[in-house]
Amino acid sequence: MPADTPQAAEDAFYDALEAGNLDQVMAAWDAGDDIACLLPMQEIARGRKAVQETFRRLFQGMGGLDIQVNHLHWALWADTALHVVEERLTGPDDRPGPAVYAVNVYRRRGDIWHLVLHQNAPAPPPAGVLQPGTPPR
Amino acid sequence: MPADTPQAAEDAFYDALEAGNLDQVMAAWDAGDDIACLLPMQEIARGRKAVQETFRRLFQGMGGLDIQVNHLHWALWADTALHVVEERLTGPDDRPGPAVYAVNVYRRRGDIWHLVLHQNAPAPPPAGVLQPGTPPR
Repeated sequence: MPADTPQAAEDAFYDALEAGNLDQVMAAWDAGDDIACLLPMQEIARGRKAVQETFRRLFQGMGGLDIQVNHLHWALWADTALHVVEERLTGPDDRPGPAVYAVNVYRRRGDIWHLVLHQNAPAPPPAGVLQPGTPPR
Repeated sequence: MPADTPQAAEDAFYDALEAGNLDQVMAAWDAGDDIACLLPMQEIARGRKAVQETFRRLFQGMGGLDIQVNHLHWALWADTALHVVEERLTGPDDRPGPAVYAVNVYRRRGDIWHLVLHQNAPAPPPAGVLQPGTPPR
């Protein structure tokens, strides 16, 4: 079902990640070749072919992802929506992984929204894990 | 000088970081309160007040930044521009730091472009630093 809101596009993207369904993942992305994806500790993937290869490798290694998403921030103007979420991935051993920030940028074409950029970054560790006075890196 | 292109907004932002000039940094950001900034290993800063506090603390710790920026990717549609860059920070000891990815999202109001989102994430280490077969994290 085409995503008629940015949130529907986001839900479709994460549902596809959970299902480990590559076609479904790529359907959530914009058809333009100006899309880009930065997964943790990987080179930037630019364009549909590179983005598809990124998720193909991810699913090859991990299958579908058990992923929890919490919304932290959003902005919406004209044909653009910008969401910042916190992702928590549960590993194959059922142990929850560290929190990861993700920025998702969506673009509207006509009435339909698609993902244009996905970038992950580590979230800071919980308070107390770093020693007091440890400078941010 | 108001930034009449996304690139001018980006140049103004990084010039302000190099100068350690907080007012100049904030002038590069959009006036809306839907802006957000994620610096490495820090909590998300949402809104102008929190973003300003983030850069105030950064300058307090480091002063102006010696920062090299390489463009990796850009997209432009309607009132939105999206840039992915690689940042390299030179430390106080003159040693270059590791590469960091940054996503910068710009919004146009009238003819003027401002920053709406800045997010940093670690770039992968150079080839050969990780052992062969090390899975991406």
